[in-house]
Amino acid sequence: MKRYETLAHTIADEIRHGNLAAGTRLPSLRQIIAQHGVSQSTVFRAYYLLEQWGLIRARERSGYYVAPGAVAPGAAARGSGASESRASDRAASTRKVDISDLVFSVLDAATQPGIVPLGSAFPSPQLFPLPRVAKSLAQAARRISPWSTVVDLPPGNEALRRQIALRYLATGIAQPIDELVVTSGALEALNLCLMAVTRPGDVVAVESPGFYAALQAIERLDLRAVEIPVDPRTGLDLDALANALDRHDVRACWFMTNFQNPTGVTLPIEKKRALVELLAARDVPLIEDDVYGELHFGPDYPLPARAFDRHGLVMHCSSFSKTLAPGYRIGWAAAGRFAEKVQRLKLMTTLSASIPAQAGIANYLEYGGYDRHLRKLRGALQAQLDRMDDALRRWLPPGVDWVRPEGGYFLWLAFPDAIDAMALHRQAIARGISVAPGPLFSAAHGFARCVRVNFGHPWSGDIERAIRVLGELAAASAVRREG
Amino acid sequence: MKRYETLAHTIADEIRHGNLAAGTRLPSLRQIIAQHGVSQSTVFRAYYLLEQWGLIRARERSGYYVAPGAVAPGAAARGSGASESRASDRAASTRKVDISDLVFSVLDAATQPGIVPLGSAFPSPQLFPLPRVAKSLAQAARRISPWSTVVDLPPGNEALRRQIALRYLATGIAQPIDELVVTSGALEALNLCLMAVTRPGDVVAVESPGFYAALQAIERLDLRAVEIPVDPRTGLDLDALANALDRHDVRACWFMTNFQNPTGVTLPIEKKRALVELLAARDVPLIEDDVYGELHFGPDYPLPARAFDRHGLVMHCSSFSKTLAPGYRIGWAAAGRFAEKVQRLKLMTTLSASIPAQAGIANYLEYGGYDRHLRKLRGALQAQLDRMDDALRRWLPPGVDWVRPEGGYFLWLAFPDAIDAMALHRQAIARGISVAPGPLFSAAHGFARCVRVNFGHPWSGDIERAIRVLGELAAASAVRREG
Repeated sequence: MKRYETLAHTIADEIRHGNLAAGTRLPSLRQIIAQHGVSQSTVFRAYYLLEQWGLIRARERSGYYVAPGAVAPGAAARGSGASESRASDRAASTRKVDISDLVFSVLDAATQPGIVPLGSAFPSPQLFPLPRVAKSLAQAARRISPWSTVVDLPPGNEALRRQIALRYLATGIAQPIDELVVTSGALEALNLCLMAVTRPGDVVAVESPGFYAALQAIERLDLRAVEIPVDPRTGLDLDALANALDRHDVRACWFMTNFQNPTGVTLPIEKKRALVELLAARDVPLIEDDVYGELHFGPDYPLPARAFDRHGLVMHCSSFSKTLAPGYRIGWAAAGRFAEKVQRLKLMTTLSASIPAQAGIANYLEYGGYDRHLRKLRGALQAQLDRMDDALRRWLPPGVDWVRPEGGYFLWLAFPDAIDAMALHRQAIARGISVAPGPLFSAAHGFARCVRVNFGHPWSGDIERAIRVLGELAAASAVRREG
Repeated sequence: MKRYETLAHTIADEIRHGNLAAGTRLPSLRQIIAQHGVSQSTVFRAYYLLEQWGLIRARERSGYYVAPGAVAPGAAARGSGASESRASDRAASTRKVDISDLVFSVLDAATQPGIVPLGSAFPSPQLFPLPRVAKSLAQAARRISPWSTVVDLPPGNEALRRQIALRYLATGIAQPIDELVVTSGALEALNLCLMAVTRPGDVVAVESPGFYAALQAIERLDLRAVEIPVDPRTGLDLDALANALDRHDVRACWFMTNFQNPTGVTLPIEKKRALVELLAARDVPLIEDDVYGELHFGPDYPLPARAFDRHGLVMHCSSFSKTLAPGYRIGWAAAGRFAEKVQRLKLMTTLSASIPAQAGIANYLEYGGYDRHLRKLRGALQAQLDRMDDALRRWLPPGVDWVRPEGGYFLWLAFPDAIDAMALHRQAIARGISVAPGPLFSAAHGFARCVRVNFGHPWSGDIERAIRVLGELAAASAVRREG
């Protein structure tokens, strides 16, 4: 064990034994150095580790403090089971969002080495043809013109945008290439689209439960969220949306229409059409996050809402990060009438997506056999879902509910009312397993009895054992809520 | 000529002949289609071209309008020569910023093919060892572990951060690797640092004249700017800064201390030290943009303000975009005590810099001979400066003032009072030459008689001729201001 690890464990013990209570300020660097005879960099690394373990938190300009949840597991769980039943009421109110600390503490906890990544947001990188993509990258980089650094500025590499437009065309969507802006992954596309149509203080409709990045963006940009309920079987509640549009000056919607994160649900085609009409009637832009659409288990790509847009109001965002090359950071926005504004925001914030990465993906799309790879990938995910479904049936206690998704790699588990997902998450981490607890997926920190599990990793004994442990934890009193 | 080009020229003629006046709404798509018998995509492309020419502008949700400057050159010039003399007064007031339209209309105009790029912000990509970097990229991409997509998430690829830390160490700066966050170019680093320390409505001190991206970021984030004068010979006015700090609740400074854009001036070392002390006494963070520091013509890299920081208050930002691999989009922030916050903002907005690009640059830094390349690059830029200096002396009319910079690739020309830089810019574009007019570089659109020229391109007959044309235009009445 390295010196900083020893120091981290020493401090962790003091926290766990209650010598350092929640909210206590940790000793200053100088004190620790004097007390333990270590270097400043050792202290820094130890604090970094403690923070990753979720035991301490930094407060800017003031130092490190013992984290609230560090001492008494269960105490940090916010929200309650009742929040689900209040979901349609919630559409009636907007709220400031405060989600990032929760998201980062959960994500940090899940990065400990050797952990079983059921809480991960990504599929296994082993499912991707990375050597083949690297070959395309190498070829493209060798041939790249020095002037590409000017020519490929936003909207982006033209060969890549042509390939993307062709894929739209194959599904029956005529996507003008001029409205395609290449971005650093879908996350940037979504963020730029949101910035393009909002100002601080504006109200944005999001899904509940929904992707936490939408909540983080709303928090960061000083917007307000109105949460629209998503049913794991039928998808977004359009009546609640219509109601919210009546009651609030909603300036944008950010929805995931295919294999939604976290529920896995796909909005039926007639609801997508109705959604587009509802928003068009009020001239409200839709930011459509469709990063999982290509991971369909049925024969066809489920058409996105974008397919029904006649007014350039739908900004359709996707990427190659979930389907081909996670690290390349190549995504796009088909931003309709907002394309120029999105392009300008891109120029102002990050200038351009990596140019060899754009050219490499373009080369792969042309010569690499993307559709063949996608068929293989869909088959692998579906097989993993079968194994996961079996294991859940075998090991989880009775009363846990889930819907088998028709694509993507997320399962949304609803435990019986007595289970506290935050406690389950903490107990699971202690056993070397990460899960994504429900409160991550709503501004109100609701869905306290729900958990998202990832089946995007090749099946293994570790995963099987992890599910068994989850079952044991759920059955034990540790994760049951009081009262 | 393609159909959309013909249509664009037809409309351009109508604008130039005054049949379509400035501010007039252009006919709707439907009208144009009916009138000219062309397809929708032809109209779209024609409008796009007209917009690139600066003749029309889109107003969101409402259509295209004839641009103000399109008909009567000279009318669009805002600000006046007097704004320079008011520079120290200006430090006393803060202002909302409205710069993007001006910046984009100038940048768009400069992208016409075949133009002599004296207004460019980039050095010639021909100066970079792109085949060698591509080789490093190919090697790194082949060897990349699938798990790098998890491991190399922010703060970023560890080998790259180690190489960057080593370069700091070589200049005598001990830069903790944990405080280095890899970003998509320096532009993202600067933007994230600004976001990390400000909230909407906050006051930020910027240079005047200064890099327009700072003004764009302030505009985008709803901040307010207080402009601190920069003298082309002595650099930032520290008295004006102290005065501004007394009078306003300044929450951050964004300064370029080496080979400043646009003046080329480097803040003397004792002034850098004083700057750091001034800000430390008031606990005001400094965002230090140092993208040109490596392009020094003297023997040594001029130490940045970061070298004197003892409190983690200086966020030092740089990249490889101006020195090695413009299109790769790899930069970093050495973000001191704000490193974690910057890292989180990176995770929330673009997740990660392109992973093969990070690994490729790391490989190049280790094996590619970066220092040898930098010596060659500096020599080339210095030789180009000599040629540019000669040409300016030969062709410009008397009374034009400039200071020979000691690095970088920008020259800041101050014309006699009667010259209008915006008119000079427009006239130059018409003759196939771009320049960057002074009003781009201040929130008040001042510096109306100044122009930034780029000497980052290998010397050629075209550049020599362009300087001669600039001299002719400056001597002619076309660019002289009335009164």
